[in-house]
Amino acid sequence: MAFINENFLDLKENYLFIDIAKKIKAYQAENPDKALIRMGIGDVTLPIAPVVAEAMKKGAEEMTHKETFKGYEDSGRGYEFLREAVAGYYRSFGAEVDPGEILISDGAKSDCGNIVDIFGENNIVLITDPAYPVYVDSNTMSGKDIIYASSNEENGFAAMPDDSVDCDIIYLCSPNNPTGSVYTKEQLEKWVAYAKSKSAIIIFDSAYEAFIRDETLPRSIFCIEGARDCAIEICSLSKTAGFTGMRCGYTVIPKELTAYDTDGEPVNVFKLWCRRQGSKFNGVSYPVQCAAAAVFTPEGLAETRKNIDYYMENARIMSETCDELGIKYTGGKNSPYIWLKCPNNMGSWDFFDYLLKEIRVVGTPGEGFGPNGKGWFRLTAFGSKENTIEAMSRLKKLLK
Amino acid sequence: MAFINENFLDLKENYLFIDIAKKIKAYQAENPDKALIRMGIGDVTLPIAPVVAEAMKKGAEEMTHKETFKGYEDSGRGYEFLREAVAGYYRSFGAEVDPGEILISDGAKSDCGNIVDIFGENNIVLITDPAYPVYVDSNTMSGKDIIYASSNEENGFAAMPDDSVDCDIIYLCSPNNPTGSVYTKEQLEKWVAYAKSKSAIIIFDSAYEAFIRDETLPRSIFCIEGARDCAIEICSLSKTAGFTGMRCGYTVIPKELTAYDTDGEPVNVFKLWCRRQGSKFNGVSYPVQCAAAAVFTPEGLAETRKNIDYYMENARIMSETCDELGIKYTGGKNSPYIWLKCPNNMGSWDFFDYLLKEIRVVGTPGEGFGPNGKGWFRLTAFGSKENTIEAMSRLKKLLK
Repeated sequence: MAFINENFLDLKENYLFIDIAKKIKAYQAENPDKALIRMGIGDVTLPIAPVVAEAMKKGAEEMTHKETFKGYEDSGRGYEFLREAVAGYYRSFGAEVDPGEILISDGAKSDCGNIVDIFGENNIVLITDPAYPVYVDSNTMSGKDIIYASSNEENGFAAMPDDSVDCDIIYLCSPNNPTGSVYTKEQLEKWVAYAKSKSAIIIFDSAYEAFIRDETLPRSIFCIEGARDCAIEICSLSKTAGFTGMRCGYTVIPKELTAYDTDGEPVNVFKLWCRRQGSKFNGVSYPVQCAAAAVFTPEGLAETRKNIDYYMENARIMSETCDELGIKYTGGKNSPYIWLKCPNNMGSWDFFDYLLKEIRVVGTPGEGFGPNGKGWFRLTAFGSKENTIEAMSRLKKLLK
Repeated sequence: MAFINENFLDLKENYLFIDIAKKIKAYQAENPDKALIRMGIGDVTLPIAPVVAEAMKKGAEEMTHKETFKGYEDSGRGYEFLREAVAGYYRSFGAEVDPGEILISDGAKSDCGNIVDIFGENNIVLITDPAYPVYVDSNTMSGKDIIYASSNEENGFAAMPDDSVDCDIIYLCSPNNPTGSVYTKEQLEKWVAYAKSKSAIIIFDSAYEAFIRDETLPRSIFCIEGARDCAIEICSLSKTAGFTGMRCGYTVIPKELTAYDTDGEPVNVFKLWCRRQGSKFNGVSYPVQCAAAAVFTPEGLAETRKNIDYYMENARIMSETCDELGIKYTGGKNSPYIWLKCPNNMGSWDFFDYLLKEIRVVGTPGEGFGPNGKGWFRLTAFGSKENTIEAMSRLKKLLK
């Protein structure tokens, strides 16, 4: 008799965004004539840069000629040209990462979800609350014990470590999804010191690093001294370069990083991950890798920067509106997310329904990201400027 | 202290093809002037069809315009246009599959490796010996008990079920990698009956279905009555359309398929897999899906057929050589693999070294696929015709 993995029964029935999609579908079925402004799911809306598409077309063309055709990648870790480009990008903001430590993936979600495979069930996993649901779901699926570090109004939704709490694996995301908070260098130094004191490993999600404008804020965990001994970084081109539909990301595992077997013997984490990927992954599409490499060319970076500027202008408009309305929020400065306190002590899902019905704006209920999100709400800056202005104008009318 | 998944310690140190790559590298370092003929790893060499590349280019172009830009896919299961195309393809060889049951992936290896996530550790997994190493490795990594069904010279390297053996999950691959054997309809009917008698699930790997020329041989497990109650099928465009570097495959899970919790309560497998993918995967690159859909157009199918004909001609040349030399083998008729008995009672790795040194031909030692592969050897038809002829001519000189 084929048995299921019963850890799946501990998962909530549906993924947050599926719940939201259902509510939207039901609303639209009842109100077919009313257009919605979507500020919920963190999906980009600006097209990819032409230089990026051209690189993909060139890659596709190469695939049609015997001399330039590419089959399986030898390593499945990504082509050297792309790993070199990513290493150069890291260097541009002060993080030294060897191309050999960079593994190209089909997106941060895959690596983030699959990384649990290499860690045992006997780990205590520390996740900030609220957090991107994949951290909790992937660890629940693999039967690990999860504890939470509280991100809350008092600490600006940027949880800090507590030395009295033991843990083995730590998930951090900065700039944070969903709260938009960004850890300072000093804060990350504390996390690194804490992780090292516990021989724990930090899984650092830097998917939103490109939105950091304040140059004193670290764009990578590897900007922090000592992080190479205790951290894995997972990043993506999804938000940096509009790759949500193109699918490419990268994970950095320093070659000296170790985890332990139950006898306390050190095991190399990079090798463990390569073994996992060697058996369960066959690399990223060659033309996609060509496109990704083009993101890091001067032209690609300039185009990409323009798109991020556009989104950050939306974030500014949203922040300004919250300021005007006296709504408390985090994010919006070095992050595409605005994390706001629902007005009039409304619950997250009540506020979701309220905005949907009254002003046809879709956001994301904070409690979908964890208990500490109760009464909070996430808006994204990834829409069009026109829609952002219109949504904020409706919000002002509604709440003034 | 971060603990590793100790199941990884039960894996062999290296993946088969990495071992081979090392031996080749060492040989080449010592013999830099000698060119090798590679008939080892199952990678294609013919370029992709122009119509496929054009579709990808069009997809890439669409990504650069706001009106046609694609971000995240709603479901992450693949675009309707591609799932419809795959369903049509299935229909062409007599398998009825609903597009809603087809999930598009970045390749068969990913789905094949990740499917273990949804099944509990308490399953007994039946794998044919020899087999594609991913079945064993992925189940070892997730701590499942593995038993083997013997494929051997006596049964034509096509293991059949034994009613006295209990198991919960069954891996079958037809046409088989590495042995090239193909199950008949009657044989698959026996497997389906066996699986149903055990309430087991068959994971059917049909990656080589496009090489079947004998129309009486089933190209899908879903050509078999009753398979919808007990089977998952995993397929790929890698071999069908030269997608080893493009990365696209598909998995079919009938919506009525159930597995069980430990209380014997049925749980829907399709939903379980969607939950897994919803948390750990974000769909396949849109331009890659455009390319994949083009494979199933009349022009795409015609181009693809030409390439497969080319490889099958290689297989014919290889079969003929084996016949001439009196070497026993399976495969080569409805499969791109020739699975041959090493002459003079040589061991697999000895024969590997012998061919490498004496005639500079690289194959794959059979024992890399399991104990029953000892003394057997895999050659692939994926090289060029010139190289295949040259390799066979050298083999004849060497062994005559």
